[in-house]
Amino acid sequence: MEKREQLYEGKAKILYATDDPDLLVQYFKDDATAFNRKKTGTIENKGEFNCRISTVIFRLLEREGVRTHWVKTLNDREMLVKRLTILPVEVVVRNRLAGSLAKRLGLEEGRELSRPLVEFYYKCDELDDPLMTDDQVDVLGFATGAEVAHMRTVALKVDEVLSRFFLERGIILVDYKIEFGRHKDEVLLGDEISPDSCRLWEVGTLRKLDKDRFRRDMGSVEEAYAEVLSRVET
Amino acid sequence: MEKREQLYEGKAKILYATDDPDLLVQYFKDDATAFNRKKTGTIENKGEFNCRISTVIFRLLEREGVRTHWVKTLNDREMLVKRLTILPVEVVVRNRLAGSLAKRLGLEEGRELSRPLVEFYYKCDELDDPLMTDDQVDVLGFATGAEVAHMRTVALKVDEVLSRFFLERGIILVDYKIEFGRHKDEVLLGDEISPDSCRLWEVGTLRKLDKDRFRRDMGSVEEAYAEVLSRVET
Repeated sequence: MEKREQLYEGKAKILYATDDPDLLVQYFKDDATAFNRKKTGTIENKGEFNCRISTVIFRLLEREGVRTHWVKTLNDREMLVKRLTILPVEVVVRNRLAGSLAKRLGLEEGRELSRPLVEFYYKCDELDDPLMTDDQVDVLGFATGAEVAHMRTVALKVDEVLSRFFLERGIILVDYKIEFGRHKDEVLLGDEISPDSCRLWEVGTLRKLDKDRFRRDMGSVEEAYAEVLSRVET
Repeated sequence: MEKREQLYEGKAKILYATDDPDLLVQYFKDDATAFNRKKTGTIENKGEFNCRISTVIFRLLEREGVRTHWVKTLNDREMLVKRLTILPVEVVVRNRLAGSLAKRLGLEEGRELSRPLVEFYYKCDELDDPLMTDDQVDVLGFATGAEVAHMRTVALKVDEVLSRFFLERGIILVDYKIEFGRHKDEVLLGDEISPDSCRLWEVGTLRKLDKDRFRRDMGSVEEAYAEVLSRVET
């Protein structure tokens, strides 16, 4: 496998072509952004933390029967992934109320939910990623009805697997964002799963171990990512 | 039935107690507001237009098996209604893309939808009535799961009945907002159904016959309401 030209640079990752048209290299950067690029910065070694954390998680999910874009990890910052046509919605799963949803509804953070919430948000910085109902995603053509149902099912399966996995490591999976893409005739889980895309709270102390430390200027950002990595790799 | 003290004054209506604790008088005002009171004004005779239009519509819906709060209309501006504990969500049904949804998603107005969309919005002026998914309404306790399912079913039944009714009168029912409330052990359709709460476009010309004329300063507001009344009462 030979790494070729850069195809796309996002907020936290770069995608490169390879000599195989079906495969890409996903490179993890240290760049950090929040609030749709309204806040930007760097988290030292984040690329490495997130690549290694995502590797553990994708491997676990594949073992549990979730089909992902991950093929193998090449080094501390790069993984080989299947080429996806990313669907234009972010899928958010919540186990506790936090972040944008709490704010939008004027509710307090932290409440445990009686069952996980699965939500779709239109990936559009200019519109601030608006929430969409399942029906809107389908009827307005952002994904097919079958894809919406599939994403919802996979999102809940991921939630079951990862909630247990993190809890065994003393971490509460509060919520997380995942993305999906079409690859040939399948819809695969793509992107990354890391403290950039999850809210992770330490059991007991409820100490934040995720990007909220960056978003809210709480300090000890690198330490939190390192802590997650060390718990996840054991 | 004796009308007693004022219980509540809203943007477009006033509720009065009666000598029967289960019944209220709903009075229709001429006051008009838009964008959650950011724009205010008066539409002459609106109270009368909307009371009479709502009367026709509630009577039709009751005949079609939809349970509403309407008991009888007392005069040109007042109806006797069952006392409801209003659920804190507005239910919006869309047959064509228009208004806030088009804006939020950066899409053009007017597109016909392959099937009607039913949406819930949290009734909260300060938060600008945020969209909620069905699951959010239920899990966060804004209504029970059974109530969410019931509101969705009734909303679609109302859509079927009213789309046909308006079309027979040369009007496209683009979208509308309805509200529900608990009365004893039932959830009833409440509020009003009028050009204040519906988008109504004339077949062919697509001329707007609803509150958008007020929202968007298009003029001929009273004429549009009068036009709807005259078509609806024939």
